[in-house]
Amino acid sequence: MLPFKTLIQIDKNGKLPVYQQVANRLVGLIQEGLLKPGLYLPGSRVLAEQLMLHRKTVIAAYDELISQDWLVAVPRKGVMVAVNLPDIKPRSFSAGASPYNTSAAFSFRAVSSVQTPAAAAGTLVINDGFPDARIAPLNAWVRECRAVIDSPRYHRSLMYGSGTGTETLRREMQRYLSDTRGLRISVSNLMITRGAQMAIYLAASLIIKPGDEVIVGSPDYFLADLCFEQLGARLQRVPVDEEGIDVDAVEQLCSTRKIKMLYLIPHHHHPTTVTLSAARRMKLLEIIRRHKLPVIEDDYDYDFHYNSAPILPLASADHGGNVIYIGSFTKSLGLSVRIGFMVATPDFIEQATGLRKLMDIRGDNLSELALANLLADGTIERHLKKSNKVYKERRDLLCTQLTTRLGKAVQFTIPSGGMALWLRFAKKYPLAKIAAKAQSMGLHMSNGAQYCYGSAAQNGLRFGFASLNAREIHAVVNILEQLTTGS
Amino acid sequence: MLPFKTLIQIDKNGKLPVYQQVANRLVGLIQEGLLKPGLYLPGSRVLAEQLMLHRKTVIAAYDELISQDWLVAVPRKGVMVAVNLPDIKPRSFSAGASPYNTSAAFSFRAVSSVQTPAAAAGTLVINDGFPDARIAPLNAWVRECRAVIDSPRYHRSLMYGSGTGTETLRREMQRYLSDTRGLRISVSNLMITRGAQMAIYLAASLIIKPGDEVIVGSPDYFLADLCFEQLGARLQRVPVDEEGIDVDAVEQLCSTRKIKMLYLIPHHHHPTTVTLSAARRMKLLEIIRRHKLPVIEDDYDYDFHYNSAPILPLASADHGGNVIYIGSFTKSLGLSVRIGFMVATPDFIEQATGLRKLMDIRGDNLSELALANLLADGTIERHLKKSNKVYKERRDLLCTQLTTRLGKAVQFTIPSGGMALWLRFAKKYPLAKIAAKAQSMGLHMSNGAQYCYGSAAQNGLRFGFASLNAREIHAVVNILEQLTTGS
Repeated sequence: MLPFKTLIQIDKNGKLPVYQQVANRLVGLIQEGLLKPGLYLPGSRVLAEQLMLHRKTVIAAYDELISQDWLVAVPRKGVMVAVNLPDIKPRSFSAGASPYNTSAAFSFRAVSSVQTPAAAAGTLVINDGFPDARIAPLNAWVRECRAVIDSPRYHRSLMYGSGTGTETLRREMQRYLSDTRGLRISVSNLMITRGAQMAIYLAASLIIKPGDEVIVGSPDYFLADLCFEQLGARLQRVPVDEEGIDVDAVEQLCSTRKIKMLYLIPHHHHPTTVTLSAARRMKLLEIIRRHKLPVIEDDYDYDFHYNSAPILPLASADHGGNVIYIGSFTKSLGLSVRIGFMVATPDFIEQATGLRKLMDIRGDNLSELALANLLADGTIERHLKKSNKVYKERRDLLCTQLTTRLGKAVQFTIPSGGMALWLRFAKKYPLAKIAAKAQSMGLHMSNGAQYCYGSAAQNGLRFGFASLNAREIHAVVNILEQLTTGS
Repeated sequence: MLPFKTLIQIDKNGKLPVYQQVANRLVGLIQEGLLKPGLYLPGSRVLAEQLMLHRKTVIAAYDELISQDWLVAVPRKGVMVAVNLPDIKPRSFSAGASPYNTSAAFSFRAVSSVQTPAAAAGTLVINDGFPDARIAPLNAWVRECRAVIDSPRYHRSLMYGSGTGTETLRREMQRYLSDTRGLRISVSNLMITRGAQMAIYLAASLIIKPGDEVIVGSPDYFLADLCFEQLGARLQRVPVDEEGIDVDAVEQLCSTRKIKMLYLIPHHHHPTTVTLSAARRMKLLEIIRRHKLPVIEDDYDYDFHYNSAPILPLASADHGGNVIYIGSFTKSLGLSVRIGFMVATPDFIEQATGLRKLMDIRGDNLSELALANLLADGTIERHLKKSNKVYKERRDLLCTQLTTRLGKAVQFTIPSGGMALWLRFAKKYPLAKIAAKAQSMGLHMSNGAQYCYGSAAQNGLRFGFASLNAREIHAVVNILEQLTTGS
């Protein structure tokens, strides 16, 4: 008889009923080739004694496996391992080894990625431009979630969602986008996505085929670049200066090469925060129409603007149906709920919805309905008003502090909106070194590498000011001051 | 002077301040070529009179556009359209026409899709196998969301998520999957996804290259088939009978062709609900190891089982690191919150995380933390126990009703778990006809087309019983009875 006492270990405090633990282990022994087809198992009394269990427990385990066809009860002879099972050569298989405790046995694609800083607990963080979760309308959010589930209509509306997004939210968003961006759209031009990133991925997947050339800025938002490259695009990089992307260079490329698409962040460009000038906007619209150039306009933080009103997106001008407009409510909701959107012609939205279903059947209905309520009752707009005030103060405090305390060690332009400023350090302060020293002083910050993916090194980083209160801004600048004057 | 009164329409009840409406419209007129570079605009007093606005409003609009570089203030002469703007040939451009009210001007990829029924309000619905949102633990869900945002730790944990999923949830899931599925995994084998579908898409994207051959069942889950085809796979279909997928046919294909991957639903196969037999499981494991065959094991409703205990997944046996195991908590949470998972070797999880970031940076931290709490405090397990009881009763009621009232018009096997049964109608009742008639009687049901995508027509549909209470089951069967006896 096999040493069942060793082979079948029972965890009496485990969540699984003991009989099921015994059954599972017996299946394991069959699969490992230790219990051969046709072998008779010990009688339930004998096994129970060995394992120090009640006999009924062993009987229950045997019954379970008989119903699952692993074992067969042979009248007057006992319980036998089913003979129709394949005969497995027993292998030296240590009980603790997991088939997952190894590398994959097959080959698979590698995905390029950029190391982004992960913030350890208890440290100060300079992030990429995050909202402050402490002032996000999360109480209102939870209140609306409760209102949705308490509504008698929720049953059906929570069950039957669509890949395009909840109709109620799309109607609210259509109104909101018309009011704030002057977009002349109907609900059929609009789909809800998981943040702006999914909208970028969906749109790019429909447009780009491997080998296609795509124009992006230099520098550019690294997760967009990586996405296009993953889809097989070859990137044509065009300089971004203080007026935004170089539109003449875009035209030059369109006239001389087969360009498949342009990716654009005309408002608070990532990472540099510059905004595309009026003259370039008009010229670009003309190029887009003339070349029938598909454009992804990523307007990730239109809602955060501090000086004048935000500049209307290209999407609201006459672009001949070429502009796919992308944005997000994730920043309004404090990052914890990811809801974005894509605006395009109805035929494009239809195919994007088909693709979205294949990667993520639909959105969270509960979240979508809660956001619809927050848009309808004005909570989102009130929150944006409030956070614009708070973030403007933080921007101004940071800019003053940087100027007075870091002086010539850094260089920046005051951003007109958004949640970050583009801070370049003087050459004598290489960011890799600054970031490493900062880490040891309890400040977590980027070494700048992610911001020059595919572009020339800029010795710069996005300094997210929105999520830092006055005390934290002082503390962060204190550390940077020590690092740039002490050395 | 241009007819500004006609060109600039003000909505005094609009959400946008009036000065901004004027500014936006002036930009539109510049972009449409009606206001040329170098043109002087009427004085603010004149324009205010025309538009019947306060003069200060017009001044504010002009100031706004001056700050945005669309207009230039020329001392002693007035306000001029900036001369550095490109000269646009005016086009007949009706004020109401939207650039999105058309087809896209460029070509893009088509995505194959299958029409799935959309349920109109107020009708009875036979769905694909949905949980009942009415018994889902949504109150506990909202309670935990509140607990998370009320916790002082939430700020940081909500802000700094990862593409792999919140660490806290991964730890809880690792424990849960070990307890319930006997999976011997660590947290590095596990990533959180948007439902099972995103896990399928990610895994398939890493494995499949265009032209690769992939084995699937016939019939098979249509959203998996569509996903593989979208990625360029050629599908090799293998019959599914009452013991599950034909393993000999799988072996035959692996021995004679270059097979890249196998997609498998061994537990409650979709659509047929059959479970892979013990003998075939063992044989399949041997084939997988011998051919180093990557397998996606889709175990979408393991947690719902009514007769015996569920059969352990292939993933918990010795598969040599070839099995990517996929599942979901979406059904436990009543469909409104989409959280799934993928289990694989750490190297595979790392690349899948990279790809996930490109399509959906990370999950909803708030949802992930709430689910972690519900797993930790046993709410999920209690809910599963309760819903298994309810769904078993509904399954039994439906089966009795179908047998006694529809008789030979239909054919089915009682499913051992899950939320649907696979109901085939006799040939004389073509589903397309039955579904059309049912619609007119207030019952929404599939015409069966989605279940035979790429396979032979089966005249069958998945009859989701879990979301129908006793009254609704009676009402649905009533209608079906009329349709099959009356004709």
